[in-house]
Amino acid sequence: MSTVLDQLYATLLSRKNAPADSSYVASLYAKGLNKILEKVGEEAIETLLAAKDINENKGHEHLIYETADLWFHTLVMLAHLNISPNQVLQELERRMGQSGLVEKANRTSTE
Amino acid sequence: MSTVLDQLYATLLSRKNAPADSSYVASLYAKGLNKILEKVGEEAIETLLAAKDINENKGHEHLIYETADLWFHTLVMLAHLNISPNQVLQELERRMGQSGLVEKANRTSTE
Amino acid sequence: MSTVLDQLYATLLSRKNAPADSSYVASLYAKGLNKILEKVGEEAIETLLAAKDINENKGHEHLIYETADLWFHTLVMLAHLNISPNQVLQELERRMGQSGLVEKANRTSTE
Amino acid sequence: MSTVLDQLYATLLSRKNAPADSSYVASLYAKGLNKILEKVGEEAIETLLAAKDINENKGHEHLIYETADLWFHTLVMLAHLNISPNQVLQELERRMGQSGLVEKANRTSTE
Repeated sequence: MSTVLDQLYATLLSRKNAPADSSYVASLYAKGLNKILEKVGEEAIETLLAAKDINENKGHEHLIYETADLWFHTLVMLAHLNISPNQVLQELERRMGQSGLVEKANRTSTE
Repeated sequence: MSTVLDQLYATLLSRKNAPADSSYVASLYAKGLNKILEKVGEEAIETLLAAKDINENKGHEHLIYETADLWFHTLVMLAHLNISPNQVLQELERRMGQSGLVEKANRTSTE
Repeated sequence: MSTVLDQLYATLLSRKNAPADSSYVASLYAKGLNKILEKVGEEAIETLLAAKDINENKGHEHLIYETADLWFHTLVMLAHLNISPNQVLQELERRMGQSGLVEKANRTSTE
Repeated sequence: MSTVLDQLYATLLSRKNAPADSSYVASLYAKGLNKILEKVGEEAIETLLAAKDINENKGHEHLIYETADLWFHTLVMLAHLNISPNQVLQELERRMGQSGLVEKANRTSTE
């Protein structure tokens, strides 16, 4: 579905058997799930702060950068747990396919 | 790039002028940036907890669901601020295009 | 040490065997650790947003309120796990007692 | 009220005019509010993960350590903004003083 996400995920998977000191991502895998989740949490915090710092025409680039960091580390988490981003996209698509989908996206829908 | 993200984003944009009580997303827009950011933060927390609860062959569906919630509310944040998800994907692509990109994804790369 | 924290903790402990519908705290205990941790995370997010919204002479009351919420739910977490806040205060005191303590508060000190 | 919190807060205030490289706390002040809030957020995340890792009789010390980190950085935030922790404790006391206080601690309850 998403070429960029697919390619990035494939790259992330390919690093799973690499030595811990061979790349940033390999070092994250080696440190384990908690470290990866800490990074996801940190990037979420930094995304919120970047969004709060937007004013007028300033700050959009920084928010884009932090959001990319958040999505990136979410993908590392998924790769670590062998879950494809397509499964997440399919869940989003499923919600869109429901009538009134977006309206209920955050609830357990009746479908 | 990503059909699902594109379609979802288009849908989210289309709700921006709708009455606050017409949909879940419209109510979020009406409550403003802080409420949207609270949701992003909450979904990040729920994603972490779901990831911690995975064991053996159990819990993957729940993590996919929470990650979809996280990405969904990130998109609401972007829509609220008129930033396209393609700008985030392009930032991820830019990093991939760099040699050793993924290795440095979280740093200000030397390029 | 802290009269208020001590009294609040004693009150929180006393609710641990109460019916789930008897109080807000009893309902949190009944929902379990994940729900309590979600609340800790949410209050942390709301504290950050309140701190960002302070400007000039406005917003201090809101931040005090949110910080109280954060500490309160931290105490609920501790009570749920049978950990006294005095153990946390003793850890803080231990750090202060070290020469240069505060300087290293966030590291595993050598001392 | 709380001797430890009072002493720690006094120490934190005393570092506010110190050179950035004189202590960990002085370096945080120098980096500004966003950096301090990032630390509060990170410590909240690490507290959640530590709580999830408790099982049986193991992990309590780690949670105490992370909770101390969370409270410590909350105090740095308060000191940076010239808010005394006693104002937070008074808010907690106020809630306790209300009949049924703890039951509604998270709401603006008049009851």
